[in-house]
This record gives sequence, C-alpha cells and structure tokens, in this order.
Amino acid sequence: MGQVTAMPRNEDGIAAAIGVLKQKYGDALQTGQSLRDQHAHTTTWLTPQPPDAVIFPTSTEEVADIVKTCAKYSVPVIPFGTGTSLEGHVNAPAGGVCVDLMQMNKVLEVHAEDLNCVIQPGVTREDLNTHLRDQGLFFPIDPGANASLGGMVATGASGTNAVRYGTMKDNVISLEVVTADGRVIRTASRAKKTSAGYDLTRLIVGSEGTLGIVTEITLRLQGIPEAMSAARCSFTSVGTACEAVMQVIQYGIPVARIELLDEHSVAAVNAYSKLDLPEQPLLLMEFHGSEASVVEQAELFGQIAKDNGAIGYEATASTEERNRLWKARHDLYWATLQVRPGAKGISTDVCVPISRLAECVVATQERMKADGFVPMVLGHVGDGNFHSVVLLDMDNPEEVAKAEAFVSWLNELAISMDGTCTGEHGIGQGKMPYLRKELGDAVDVMAAIKAALDPDNILNPGKVIAS
Amino acid sequence: MGQVTAMPRNEDGIAAAIGVLKQKYGDALQTGQSLRDQHAHTTTWLTPQPPDAVIFPTSTEEVADIVKTCAKYSVPVIPFGTGTSLEGHVNAPAGGVCVDLMQMNKVLEVHAEDLNCVIQPGVTREDLNTHLRDQGLFFPIDPGANASLGGMVATGASGTNAVRYGTMKDNVISLEVVTADGRVIRTASRAKKTSAGYDLTRLIVGSEGTLGIVTEITLRLQGIPEAMSAARCSFTSVGTACEAVMQVIQYGIPVARIELLDEHSVAAVNAYSKLDLPEQPLLLMEFHGSEASVVEQAELFGQIAKDNGAIGYEATASTEERNRLWKARHDLYWATLQVRPGAKGISTDVCVPISRLAECVVATQERMKADGFVPMVLGHVGDGNFHSVVLLDMDNPEEVAKAEAFVSWLNELAISMDGTCTGEHGIGQGKMPYLRKELGDAVDVMAAIKAALDPDNILNPGKVIAS
Repeated sequence: MGQVTAMPRNEDGIAAAIGVLKQKYGDALQTGQSLRDQHAHTTTWLTPQPPDAVIFPTSTEEVADIVKTCAKYSVPVIPFGTGTSLEGHVNAPAGGVCVDLMQMNKVLEVHAEDLNCVIQPGVTREDLNTHLRDQGLFFPIDPGANASLGGMVATGASGTNAVRYGTMKDNVISLEVVTADGRVIRTASRAKKTSAGYDLTRLIVGSEGTLGIVTEITLRLQGIPEAMSAARCSFTSVGTACEAVMQVIQYGIPVARIELLDEHSVAAVNAYSKLDLPEQPLLLMEFHGSEASVVEQAELFGQIAKDNGAIGYEATASTEERNRLWKARHDLYWATLQVRPGAKGISTDVCVPISRLAECVVATQERMKADGFVPMVLGHVGDGNFHSVVLLDMDNPEEVAKAEAFVSWLNELAISMDGTCTGEHGIGQGKMPYLRKELGDAVDVMAAIKAALDPDNILNPGKVIAS
Repeated sequence: MGQVTAMPRNEDGIAAAIGVLKQKYGDALQTGQSLRDQHAHTTTWLTPQPPDAVIFPTSTEEVADIVKTCAKYSVPVIPFGTGTSLEGHVNAPAGGVCVDLMQMNKVLEVHAEDLNCVIQPGVTREDLNTHLRDQGLFFPIDPGANASLGGMVATGASGTNAVRYGTMKDNVISLEVVTADGRVIRTASRAKKTSAGYDLTRLIVGSEGTLGIVTEITLRLQGIPEAMSAARCSFTSVGTACEAVMQVIQYGIPVARIELLDEHSVAAVNAYSKLDLPEQPLLLMEFHGSEASVVEQAELFGQIAKDNGAIGYEATASTEERNRLWKARHDLYWATLQVRPGAKGISTDVCVPISRLAECVVATQERMKADGFVPMVLGHVGDGNFHSVVLLDMDNPEEVAKAEAFVSWLNELAISMDGTCTGEHGIGQGKMPYLRKELGDAVDVMAAIKAALDPDNILNPGKVIAS
C-alpha cells in the first residue's frame, strides 16, 4: 500500500488516440507535465500515476466522441472532477486520457415544483446550492470537500447530512451516461420513483467511472427548512458519546447531522480554526425542521445526552455560530494534517452497524496509541461511519509498515463486525483487497458486469475490481 | 396484450430436471395441475402460463441445489412468493420449475439497536410487522397486498408509505442471492451505508427474479412513531386535489401517506367497505411523529387543503377509525372489481413528475370516459404515482381492444411527461414494450447485464427484457 500497481501500457494506442484527439480538439487537449500531474491522484499517501493527456470536453457529444476514439485504440479513459477522492480513483495505472469534466458546469433545469434539477457533472456542490438558494431549495449531500456532483455520483458520496437525507444513492433520480462504446444512455425518467427495469441509476452511482462516464445528473432536492439549529456537547469517553448517538437514532430523532470528534481531533480543530472547544470527545449536531420541531429535537437530544453523562451541552439558533462550527468540522482533515507538519495523512473509512460503533472506535483508538500514532477518530457516527486519520512520515519505512498494518487491521475489524471497509470513500485502488474479503464471490458478479459493459477494460481500469 | 407470448420449450431438459429433483426432494416437488395453475399468473387479465412443476425448498442450500440442477439441463426457474404481482411476473412462458419460497418464512435476526433485521424471503409483510411490534419497531413498505418480502424485493415494491419512507430500494440493506449457476452470494454487509463496489443490492431489487433468487434479506426498520393520526378531505375536482398534494410536498410536510381516490373509487369503497364517504375526489392522509409534530402536520395540511377549496376536512387520532379508513383503501382493488361483477380488472401503473400529475390524472379520466369505461383513478399521489382500474368483459373483443389502446396511450402519455410506465408494479410481461419506449438503448445495457449474469436465460425468462 501507498505503493500502487502499474498496469501494462498500450503505447501505440495511446499515441494514436492522443494524435487523433489533438487534431480534433486542439488546445482542449493538453499533455504538459504539470497539468498531467494535477490530474493524477494528489490526496493522501497513494503514489500519483498521471495520465498521458488531459482533455476538457464541453458537451455530451464530445465526451461520447472522445470515448469512441479511445475505444477504437483500446486506450484508458479516466473521468475527473475536482480530484478530491481519497483512494486513488483518478490515478492512471495504465496511462491514457483523463477526461476533465469541469467545463461541463451548467445547471440545466431546476424543477422547483418537483423538487429536482438537471445539471452537468462539473457543477460543484457549493455552486449548486448557491444557484438554488433563491428558490428556497438545497441539495443536502455534503462530503466536506467542494466536490463536483459528477465525482460525487461516481464515488457514491455521502457525508455529514446522510443520517437525515441519505447518500447519493438515495438522491440521484436519473443519469445520462456515456458507455464504453461511446453510446449515450439515460438510466431513468424524471419520475420520483420507478420500477422500470434494472436500476441502472444506482448501478452507476458508486461505480467510480468504471462502467460509464456521467454527463448529466437529475438530482432530488429539498426545501430549505424553516428552521435550523445546532448543538454541541462533550463526553468523558468516545464510548459514552457513541452510546448517546445510538439512543438518538433509536429514538427516531430526525437529526440532520450528528458528528463525533475525539479529543485529539478537537485539539486539532482548536489549533487550526482558532476555537476553544473543550478538548474531550465532542458531538456536534444540527437540527432541521419547523420552528417547533427544531426546539423539540434539541430538547430530546439534550435529555439523551445528559442521561449519558454529557458535559457542557450548548444549543444555538445563531446562523453565524452554526456556520463557524460546521466550517471547522469541514476543515478538520486539513486541521489534522497540521498536527504533524510535513506528514502525509491517511484518512481511513469504515462503517459498522451502530451497535458495534463504540467497540470499534475504542479499539481503533487503542491500536493507534499502541502503534505510536496520534489516535484521531472522527466521523458520521449516526450512520456508524467513522474515519481515523493516521499521520505518518513517508520516509520512515517502519512507520509506513505500521500504518499499512493498522489500516489493514481496521478494515478487517470492521468486516468482522458485519460492517464494510468503506462507508463513503469508495474502493479506488486502495481498498481492492478488502472488497474481496468483505464480499467474496459477489466480487465475481461485479467483475462479470464490468466485463459485459466494458469488455476492453478502458473505463478507469485498475479500480474497484482488479483486472 | 392480455395474450402473452409463449417461448420455445426445452421438453427433454424439463423432463430430466424434474426427474432428478423429484428423486431428491420427493413430495416437496409437485406436478399436479391445480397446484401448477395456482402458481401461474392469477391476477388481472394476462393469460396464465403454469410451470411444469412446483418445488418448495426450505433452505438456501436447497435453492442453490435446485438452481444448479435446472442450470445443468437449461430449464427455466421461476421464483414465487404470494403471487400478487400484476404484470405476469410469475408466468412460465417456456415452462420450467416454479420455486415457491413460502416455506422459507423465518425471521432470523432482529437487531433492534441497529434498526434492522434479517429474514427469509417467505416472510410476509404482515407477519414481519406482527413479529416486530413488541420491540416497538415496524417495516414501513406497504404495497397493499400481504405480499412476501422476497416478492417485494423482486418487484421493488413501494405503496402508500413510500412518500415518507421510500421504496424497497431505499430499505433493503443487503441480500443473499442464488445466482444462475447456483452460487450463493451476499451483496453487502449489515452496515447502514456502504461504498464497497457496485451496488448489487439495488441491482437485484426490482430485477423480478431475472438475475438471481433472493434467499435472505436484511431490511432497514423504523421505530413505531410516538403518535399517528389520519385525516381526510374532499375536493370538487381531482385537479384541485392534485394541486393540494403538490403544495404539501413542496412545503416539506413529512406526511406518511397521501392517497387520492377519485369519485368513482370512493363510490366503490363505500359499497364494498360499508362506508359513507362523500362521493367526490378524496385525499386520505396519515401523519407520523411526536405528539406535537403530528398535530402540527395535520394543521399545516388542513390549511393547504382549505386554500385549495377542500370540503369536509376531518382529522382523527382514533386508531380504530384510522385503521378502518386504511383497510378500506387497501381493499380498494377488490372494491373496484365489484363495480362490474364478472369483469376482469387491469390495474395500470404510471408515475410522473408531480408537476404533471393533475394534467395526467385529468386526461386519464377523460379518456376513460370517452372509451366508455368507469374512470377509476387512485394512487400514491405524493410520489406522482397513480393507478387506473379498467373493468372489462374479456369476451367482448371490442372492449379488450379499447382497453389495450387505453393502456398503451396512458403509458405513452406518462413517458411523454418525463415519467415512467411503471412506478411500482414492474415490467413483468405486460410492460416490456413500454420499457423500450421509455429508456431506449439503456435497455440494451440491461440486456448485457442479464446475459452476463444468466447466459443461458434460465432465471424467470421472458420477463423485463424480451429474450
């Protein structure tokens, strides 16, 4: 790990395809080293593998044409959004053409009365919400990074709001997709629900660019709630914090966000975002609803927190204070990196049934301590999904080996608890060995689907399922 | 239509497979005509096509063994639950072995703290809810019929509660599936969310037994709400009723059920269920939540209804009265059949963006009147999903032709409104022509998946995608 596997390169095909595309698209295709480097995997510790060229299409027809050209020469095509994925999803282990979709960034239709919209894949989460605000609407999925919606479809993103609003799988109504042979298909109508054939929409969501390139997205929207409020409280241990979360979920409080930061994460946030939160395990909550419902939710939560020994429960209806807290939460990954300047960070991602959450989090902290790492644990605990950030010196082989062993141990622990090796980051290159451990022969079924839809393995090869 | 297409039969293979299975399973395999007839399509107007034998496995291992035997002789395998599907899903157009899963009816695990459970496919919706009640939990999806959960997975069922709780696609966490070659796979862990590889869970949900046979189901559960209440009100037209529904959804009222019955459906209900509802377009609502939230929802709804000219708004917190209303709603299909004794009923199913709902419903009523049918329209209008029931004399070829033309017209109307030819009944045999009209080349992608996972086309052949 850290080290990624290179795949055989089709040098002649790559040269031919780039020649044809350059001829046709001129400056919209670039081969400069620095641009190619920017389009390799640039986050966390996996080794970057740049593509041979980057192309910037402006329409579905251009994407289809590019894929047809690459298909003709059996050349890999790697779709690219903002490059914020964490498991090597955008690396080019066999080289090929990176298709940067960020020029396709139009909001095409907003159907306020239907609570949905149609957008191009290069629209970012923040841009979409800015566009929607005047109409009293928002798109709830929030993975932290200001990712492109195309990328969020590809990785099946979720994040802080998923506990209330679900993940991308629950919020994509329909997709326009360019298939491996350059055909353009639409996976569903704009109806809110459908039983019309196999659910291609949800097959493409989370397929990480390996089954098709998404060129248009129909998303479910939400009305901006009448009221929002936030609350926070501290606990003496992550175990009791997790216990409180479990009770909140069982009680059916429709909490919009419920996030855990352990004491080390709180310290990192305090330092980076200039806050003075108590450096103890912390729960951050957000409530959405009517004025009355938000008050009721906050009161119920306060009672459950108190019953579990919470300290310093504070609720706020101030938008400014709420935004400050959540901005700090969103900056947490960057904050953790500052704890050990110069270190690389591995943000692992597992998800377990919530009844096993406390046990899994505590075991993770203990193992990290034993390994000599700062035991930072944080996450979307209302879903049983958490991350730990391992900070390591990549020039210290012993540390790297320890980090590898830790990640491997944590993934296997989650799997042994009937959980998953990834709740939201996806498989990419980094998690392929665990996918097989988790799902066994089901991976062969996935491979059969991949082979049927992309027989020459040109769509983002070397990801999800090893070829 | 009405008439279904027979497919070539593999007589030698069928005889051989039945011989081998009879030898092994004895009385658990039956070939008597009346049992075979009961396992053909028995609802609505499609011609029944009985299987050659019916077998009753009691374990996953037996299902896998049965599929392996049928695969060896290239014999169709048709999974069967309660037989309440409406589009010929359980017909055997090429003969073969019907696998009746109703002996596999155990609730295997209830994880109250995780809000999920693991069950066998033969558990029915009502049995599951009876089992869960003591623990304060329920499974919300309610298609009306007391269907088996396996069948509900296969058709991707939804129904009255979907507006609040989603469809089967949103509520199945993981599946155990026997594939076409008799392997047993598990599609996901028991974690609440996952990004681990392609979403096989949601690919199998709604695949109507054509990609695998479901032998175990992990379902998401809900806590029984603290409070429930119901309300009803009448409107002078279905148009204004639909307008009110659209506003309720836009306003974000988390209504648990919102059902429309047109004046003819109300009359049918009154006659069948001995009620005296005003014979005008009617909305039936149900609210779930805390005591305070339920009161707030009912008040908000009442205001919106009034603004849209509702008449006779009545709310009730009485469990008995609520149950009586919803029992009547559930019996509606049987009630409509009584309107014309001896007639066959076609319950069509379309779903459109909610902004087009009023227009689509009104056009449907007008066309039915013009065709001389009683224009009965009803449905889950909070999702834009409605049914119309056509009552016809199957011995009158002119009526049958008119009914066929009507169904065809309605499906195409829904598709032209960016809606779907089926919101919840599925494709089966009856809707195959419309699937192609709705999704074009996407159907080829579905066919490629089918061919990859079931190369000999033994799993419920002749459904969803024509072979």
